Order: sequence, then C-alpha cells, then structure tokens
Amino acid sequence: MCQLLGMNSNVPTDICFSFTGFQARGGATDVHRDGWGIAFFEGRGARVFLDPQPSSESPVAELVRHYPIRSLNVIAHIRKATQGAVGLENTHPFMRELWGRYWIFAHNGNLTDFAPDLDGSFLPVGQTDSERAFCYLLQTLRQRFADVPPGRAALHAAINEYAALVRPSGPFNFMLSNGDCLFAHRSTELHYIVRKAPFAVAHLTDRDVAVDFSELTTPLDRVAVIATLPLTDNETWTPLPSNKVAMFADGEFQPN
Amino acid sequence: MCQLLGMNSNVPTDICFSFTGFQARGGATDVHRDGWGIAFFEGRGARVFLDPQPSSESPVAELVRHYPIRSLNVIAHIRKATQGAVGLENTHPFMRELWGRYWIFAHNGNLTDFAPDLDGSFLPVGQTDSERAFCYLLQTLRQRFADVPPGRAALHAAINEYAALVRPSGPFNFMLSNGDCLFAHRSTELHYIVRKAPFAVAHLTDRDVAVDFSELTTPLDRVAVIATLPLTDNETWTPLPSNKVAMFADGEFQPN
Repeated sequence: MCQLLGMNSNVPTDICFSFTGFQARGGATDVHRDGWGIAFFEGRGARVFLDPQPSSESPVAELVRHYPIRSLNVIAHIRKATQGAVGLENTHPFMRELWGRYWIFAHNGNLTDFAPDLDGSFLPVGQTDSERAFCYLLQTLRQRFADVPPGRAALHAAINEYAALVRPSGPFNFMLSNGDCLFAHRSTELHYIVRKAPFAVAHLTDRDVAVDFSELTTPLDRVAVIATLPLTDNETWTPLPSNKVAMFADGEFQPN
Repeated sequence: MCQLLGMNSNVPTDICFSFTGFQARGGATDVHRDGWGIAFFEGRGARVFLDPQPSSESPVAELVRHYPIRSLNVIAHIRKATQGAVGLENTHPFMRELWGRYWIFAHNGNLTDFAPDLDGSFLPVGQTDSERAFCYLLQTLRQRFADVPPGRAALHAAINEYAALVRPSGPFNFMLSNGDCLFAHRSTELHYIVRKAPFAVAHLTDRDVAVDFSELTTPLDRVAVIATLPLTDNETWTPLPSNKVAMFADGEFQPN
C-alpha cells in the first residue's frame, strides 16, 4: 500500500511543513520506498515532481521541501508497490487533460481483477491498477458530461457514483483534483484537518519540527490537509467518512 | 521567441553538460527570462520539470543541472513570451497522452491567427499558440491512425504533413517526442550534432565549462543533440534542413 497527502486552501499556500513529515515516511520512518511524487496546481497550470527513488533519499524531494511553491491544490504520494514494477511510469500522481484543465490523481489501495472497458480516450502508460482507475474515471466523466464541464456539485456527485462502481474491486483510497477543488475518497484510512484562525503551533510526528502558523497566516486563511495518517502529534485529525467522496473547496470540507 | 534543446541517444544519457550552457541563456547570457522547462523520458515514463522563473535563477534548474537523469529522449525550452502571459500553464514543454504513451512538445516561433478546429479530444490549458498547435497535432494523429499507433516511418510522414499544414501560420520550430524517437522541425533556426566514437572534448559557448566525452562513453554510444543555436564553440553543428521534419532515432539523424 502507499500513503497519500493532499492540500486544499483558499489562498496559495506552501506545503513545505507537511511534506517534511510526509517525506520521512518514504524510507526513513516508514516503508514506502518505491518512489514518490507531488503535484502542485498554480493557476490553471500544474507541475508534477516525480522520482522512482525513495522520498527520504531523493534530491527532488529535498528541492520540494525547501522550495516554497504556493498552491491552492496539492496532491502527493509515496509508493509501496503492489501492482506494476518500480519505475517512473508507475509513479503517482498521474496527470491527464480533460476539458482544457489538468487533472491529477493518486491512489492508495489495491484493485483486484480491475479491467474496465477503456475506449482509448484515456489510456494508461504504466501497469498500475491506479492509473487504469484514473483513465476510467476521466472516460466516465467525459461520457457523462460530453463537452460541457460540470459545476462542482454535479462533478462531486459523478465522482461519488464512479467510486461506488469501483469500490467492490478493492481498497480505493484516492485523491483527485482539477485545480479548482480536491476530491478525497476513503476506503480504509484517510484523515483531514482544517487549519484556520486562531492558528497555533503544529508539531510533526515524523520529525522534530514545529511551525507556528499564526506567524505565517492572515485571519482569513483556511487550509485543509488530508493524509493517510495524521502528520502532527498535537492537533486533532478527523477520519474522513468511509466509502464516500469528500470534496474540499476553498479550504473547507464539504462531505457528500 | 524562445530557444529549444533536444537530445536523442541510443543509451540512456544525461544532459547535464548541454543543459548547463542552455540554462545560462534563460536570463544570464541571453534574454529568455519568461520561464523554462525540461522533459525526460525514462522507459515509458516521463517527468517534466517546469518553472515560470528564468532558468538562470531557478532552483529547479539548479537541481536539473546537478542531478544526472539518464534518458533516451529529452526536450527542453526557455521562453521569451509572445502569446500567453508568463505563468506555469504557458510554460513549455507540454505533455499529453495518446495511445498509452506520453507525448512531449515544445515550440519556438509565433503562429499568427492560428485557430485550428479542435474537437475536444486534446484541448489547451493555457493561452499559447504552441499548446494549441500541439493539441491539433495529436488530434490529427488520432484521426488519421484511429486506435492503432503507427510505426516510426508512418508517424514521421504524418508529422511532416501536419507541419506543412501549420507552416503558413508563422515560424514553427518545434520538437516532439513520444519516448521512442524525437522529431524536430526547423522554420528559422535549429542545429544538431551527433556525438559518437571517437569522442572528444567539448567546450560550452555560454560558460567556461568543458567535458571530455571519451571518459564518459563507450565506443557504441551515439547521442544527437539538437539546439536552436550551437551550444559548444569547438564542434561543428549542422543546421537542420528547413521546412522539413527530421527524425532522430537511436542517436541518429534521419532526414525526411
């Protein structure tokens, strides 16, 4: 299995603090050594940093940890391979374009005998069940809404239906974003926290690092962080409701 | 206008030396300050490093310069904006998936009044003529070959026809790769060199850096480097034939 990290905020925010803890789980404090990746949306653009090396030893991860990229939506993943060899083409997150927007997807779980009928509009490059599920998701959205991108609510409902369809195939924790909002689906483990005023000090579980968010924020800032397991040891993280797709928009949790 | 850099080789090769010279042109020795990017194929996978900052000042470019990523096909771009604001979504190279392979595209030029009829299968995310041309190219290939990816020769011919179609709209120097081979089209300026045994010392034009390739290679290695302007001052670079698509495969130049 793998671990997921996501962020959705109402002002462009860097993820250096959370990533510092998350990175350690890729080979230092935990076993997810089979590559890692992180995607940042900046406006309509997206950049994805991938490395098939363990994140705890990756020069690219060191860059990401020290280079504050400010973003409204971030998705990161550290991998422990189940299906598909260790290699760049099987490294999450995956990216595709639909309706003139980039879509980013990462998955933690294992879909067994999952062979959806792909029509060729989106095809996997690697061998993972995860990328197959992502391609099938985009194909489903495209078939349903044709050339007219839906609003947030309709999109949320469609992704919820899609998740219900795939869920019987196995554990399907995933995160998805189109740069506007972030969708998170929990099968087994996925937690979130919303940081907003009054901000306080947070301390990482995986490294002895703390940050006082009150020094870095304005009273209107709101940031949701979603992670497989809580990243801090002095804050209250909430498990996401299981078998439902949660939408995070403008730094707020919007359950379905 | 912008500058392009490409590499195609018969063994996975890093591009650190060439990139060192190229990077300097993004704000230090030349004026291309409006962002930069580089894409590496590794097996079927691809990773794209993008930064809307000038490459000469970019921490991501520093990483790329010092982190030897070995690849058979690389495409890099430094931007001087013509169409589309400076921003991540307008930063080359662009990536899409077709036939279960990633395709990477970068363009130097300016297509005027270029509004191809896009059917929605590939849509631009940003505002550049370049990304529009890339989407139109992939749509053209998809329409022509449907679900059956063509071999190298048929692909080469199709891209040549496509380039002839777009050429009247303006300068259209571009590079394209699907990870198997690299296509380069020259309208105005594009040079190449093929390095093979006996290897020698090469010295950069833009920085006082030299490398002795005979120490880093085996006699069977063959590497083609393609750049808007020659990157070294002690080797002979050849202009690509203009208004034709050249194919580079296995480190060899294969004119059309």
